[in-house]
Amino acid sequence: MPLVHFSHDGRAGLGKLFGDHVVDLASVAPRLPGTVTEFLAAGDAALEAFHRVEDKAAAAISLADVRLLPPVPHPEKYLGIGMNYRDHAAEAAKAGVATPPFQVWFNKQVSCITGPFDDVVKPKVSEKLDYEAELAVVIGRRCRHVSVEDARSAIGGYMVANDVSARDWQLRTPTHTLGKSFDTHGPIGPWLVLDDEIEDPHALDLRMYVNGEERQHGNTGDMIHNIYEQIAYLSTVMTLKPGDILATGTPGGVGVALNPPRFVQAGDVMRVEIDGIGHIENRVVAE
Amino acid sequence: MPLVHFSHDGRAGLGKLFGDHVVDLASVAPRLPGTVTEFLAAGDAALEAFHRVEDKAAAAISLADVRLLPPVPHPEKYLGIGMNYRDHAAEAAKAGVATPPFQVWFNKQVSCITGPFDDVVKPKVSEKLDYEAELAVVIGRRCRHVSVEDARSAIGGYMVANDVSARDWQLRTPTHTLGKSFDTHGPIGPWLVLDDEIEDPHALDLRMYVNGEERQHGNTGDMIHNIYEQIAYLSTVMTLKPGDILATGTPGGVGVALNPPRFVQAGDVMRVEIDGIGHIENRVVAE
Repeated sequence: MPLVHFSHDGRAGLGKLFGDHVVDLASVAPRLPGTVTEFLAAGDAALEAFHRVEDKAAAAISLADVRLLPPVPHPEKYLGIGMNYRDHAAEAAKAGVATPPFQVWFNKQVSCITGPFDDVVKPKVSEKLDYEAELAVVIGRRCRHVSVEDARSAIGGYMVANDVSARDWQLRTPTHTLGKSFDTHGPIGPWLVLDDEIEDPHALDLRMYVNGEERQHGNTGDMIHNIYEQIAYLSTVMTLKPGDILATGTPGGVGVALNPPRFVQAGDVMRVEIDGIGHIENRVVAE
Repeated sequence: MPLVHFSHDGRAGLGKLFGDHVVDLASVAPRLPGTVTEFLAAGDAALEAFHRVEDKAAAAISLADVRLLPPVPHPEKYLGIGMNYRDHAAEAAKAGVATPPFQVWFNKQVSCITGPFDDVVKPKVSEKLDYEAELAVVIGRRCRHVSVEDARSAIGGYMVANDVSARDWQLRTPTHTLGKSFDTHGPIGPWLVLDDEIEDPHALDLRMYVNGEERQHGNTGDMIHNIYEQIAYLSTVMTLKPGDILATGTPGGVGVALNPPRFVQAGDVMRVEIDGIGHIENRVVAE
């Protein structure tokens, strides 16, 4: 069952999702940590205690009554890989962007993270606001120099992400940094699905809808660099830590690659779904 | 007087530097926060209390007896601007890299931060380890949409930084992310000089030495985009927070731009000095 970060009655905490309600861990497992990052850092003991938590009416809160918060609001790092689905690389190649020989990593600033159903602000200074449906991997343990073979053991869980991008700002510089990092441009959620609940993270369909119209539809099996290769490559360079987020790339169909391009505007609703994880849905609002 | 983050006798804390010794704030001002980020977030009250701290022999620890720690070990963000000194832009232009029309920002991962006198590891996978002497600005208050005119009020203080760069990895992708982010490649310090102790941050000489040989010698007045313009531009995009670090660019003379290039090797010692702030010195060691 997913690990939920929620607020209710003015208090934020973790819960375990059972269908249409959340069992508050503060009631039934008060020794478990209060944040996802601490939960992951606590390792197997916390995981086992979580799995033992049973559905209890006395500790249940209706999903309709909670506010879902970003599962990891303050990771140390939020990295994204560019051009990592075959069809997205193809649409970019058509626009003159060559498929890179190495994994292309950029940062989303941690300050852009927002909740799974929170509003996304269209900045006054951008006229090219775009969406990217992505599977987000959350690192589960501190690690460095992880091999491709061992990489799965570094994964704590999975979320749905929308790598919202201000294309005009992204393309101002080859580093992409600022166009990926406007406040509210990092919706994640709706909860964390722990790694042992997903049989194969490379066999998940993901879809992006704008106002109900399907814009992207891909499968995580179509990644150019798979998740394990991503973790191995990143950990050659840096220590990965519990809570670190990796946005693993987006399939074809982004607004900037359509002909003519179709950017999102205030009032539009972006929805990302991933099989076996859930969906996030964010309304675009004017700044 | 600088605000020092140090450890001594197995305990880490903040101090105020008086010449050759540190007055331990835990002894003389126990209500002040214990980290630089919390100190900055506490605003004017903390600043005034700090300025009132006097030299007291009973709370003094010799500088020789403390370990200087990175002043901000865990900022939310560590951003760097590329190609921001006229002579560095000129040496890059000579190598075929055009001077960009916009501020070029990249991230150093927070996990690369290390202390002012700690070892820098030359990764086995890189043969092009290089240095960059930089003035680092630490943000002092939470802010967004700051004008150039108001930008100075967002500064908490200043540090010396070496933006250590694995050039081969940096140039693998236009985003530069991984080549800037190897563990230990972010030495900062030796302490935080508070903003009100620096008359003009754009009139500071900075110098880089490798094994005592001067490699870089510039002045912060030669920035293409000055510090206030940097803060204004970044805050158009994102909320800046107390403790966020901005590496403000490096002058000419980096190893990769020398003819022939001269990279640092295990055993080399890199020293960065900035007038009015101090110096950091880091030995390169093999992985």
